[in-house]
Amino acid sequence: MEKKFKTTRMLHFGDCDISGTAYFPSYLNILNGVNEEFWDHIGFPWHHIIWNEGWGTPTVHIACDFSKPSFFGDELHFELKVMRIGRSSMTVHHDIACEGEQRWASTQVLAASDLKKHTSIPWPSEVRDVLDTWLVSPE
Amino acid sequence: MEKKFKTTRMLHFGDCDISGTAYFPSYLNILNGVNEEFWDHIGFPWHHIIWNEGWGTPTVHIACDFSKPSFFGDELHFELKVMRIGRSSMTVHHDIACEGEQRWASTQVLAASDLKKHTSIPWPSEVRDVLDTWLVSPE
Amino acid sequence: MEKKFKTTRMLHFGDCDISGTAYFPSYLNILNGVNEEFWDHIGFPWHHIIWNEGWGTPTVHIACDFSKPSFFGDELHFELKVMRIGRSSMTVHHDIACEGEQRWASTQVLAASDLKKHTSIPWPSEVRDVLDTWLVSPE
Amino acid sequence: MEKKFKTTRMLHFGDCDISGTAYFPSYLNILNGVNEEFWDHIGFPWHHIIWNEGWGTPTVHIACDFSKPSFFGDELHFELKVMRIGRSSMTVHHDIACEGEQRWASTQVLAASDLKKHTSIPWPSEVRDVLDTWLVSPE
Repeated sequence: MEKKFKTTRMLHFGDCDISGTAYFPSYLNILNGVNEEFWDHIGFPWHHIIWNEGWGTPTVHIACDFSKPSFFGDELHFELKVMRIGRSSMTVHHDIACEGEQRWASTQVLAASDLKKHTSIPWPSEVRDVLDTWLVSPE
Repeated sequence: MEKKFKTTRMLHFGDCDISGTAYFPSYLNILNGVNEEFWDHIGFPWHHIIWNEGWGTPTVHIACDFSKPSFFGDELHFELKVMRIGRSSMTVHHDIACEGEQRWASTQVLAASDLKKHTSIPWPSEVRDVLDTWLVSPE
Repeated sequence: MEKKFKTTRMLHFGDCDISGTAYFPSYLNILNGVNEEFWDHIGFPWHHIIWNEGWGTPTVHIACDFSKPSFFGDELHFELKVMRIGRSSMTVHHDIACEGEQRWASTQVLAASDLKKHTSIPWPSEVRDVLDTWLVSPE
Repeated sequence: MEKKFKTTRMLHFGDCDISGTAYFPSYLNILNGVNEEFWDHIGFPWHHIIWNEGWGTPTVHIACDFSKPSFFGDELHFELKVMRIGRSSMTVHHDIACEGEQRWASTQVLAASDLKKHTSIPWPSEVRDVLDTWLVSPE
């Protein structure tokens, strides 16, 4: 199994600023949607865990490098890798490219959290089991 | 002169997600507005330099730690410090607090860029002179 | 008493699209913030009524005319008038101008709603009393 | 030919507010993306006409009725109909439903505009020809 989740997003009109390139907060809105799609894909849709189980995965750290601009109309290819899994957190890395050129990259820490108490919780075991299958091998 | 730029923002309804706390891409939209206000304050409003001079300051790197949640209605205090100034870039650090509690922090690199060619340019000398007055002293 | 609530907003970088004018969904985000400020002003901050009383004022109808474009950096003057108050709804009208030129206008119906049940509720009497003082006279 | 353009959108985490339902400015951002998809579909992608031909289709009027709330995770079905075509404008109507229940509707006027001069222009004839094939019959 290739331990990468891949998806694409077109850079839309509403994501771009005066220069015709991505407004970086819009990039992060798109990134959040990609994470949401990953959680759907692995069987734990956010709308299920938030509505029915009262927990979510807020971002506690993010670092991004925007190495090349992306333009309105570009098709962006996202590759998501799970780099690390802790008791209640996970580190995901995204590489984002267009036509083979790396545009930006992001490393992000999500923490499993009780949405009422706003405190971290350990991953439910069935979630942890699935996340473990996505963990990239140390090399 | 205290080398900090300070401003406040209320966390609005439209900035918050289902949990009642800030949606992190909205946080970065707010942060971008704080940077915009800083550039107004130092005499180089973005709308002037973009419209009249054809250059801007896109973000090429950002790293954020969201250590405590902020809630709808909170008044957030931003403190901006200029940590480093290069030939065509600057590093700004923000500490964001509410009622004396640190909520999040961000370190961001902006690069002076030609908005038509999408290439970096050296800071115009009058901009560099002003930025230099904001540079925090090394300790 | 002049029955208009007035406030201003600068059109920020993050509100504008490729053409350098306001992206209309961003206009409506700004408008929502102006309504939020009005409710603060009349003594019923949304963050209070939502957090402590479990009700809010979702929009059930809106109609906007964007008659002239607004540009990045423009200072927009908002004038809000309460046109009609029903058992559980209110109609607000906004005129938005820059340097004396009308740019756009909006007529919007807000409905008092229970945020858990997602059903309309009558205005609490103390709210209704205050809203009534803002109702523009029929002519 | 059925003169309706249909597409779907999931209501994402980033589109929803504290109540767990759509934030209405986010609804309009989604609507704008649906219009963008329609223009792709008919052969005139916005990124092509904006970048290569210097014109676009800003919104000059919009009216929306939000009759029922939509919730985070809902799949929304959009149906777009072209109601009227003028010399330089078009009126589009959207019905948006989830599981057969109408949630909201929008009637919107777009105007063909020169993006440099910010003035309306007549539809290019090849665009007008295609739009005409989408015009719903008067009944």
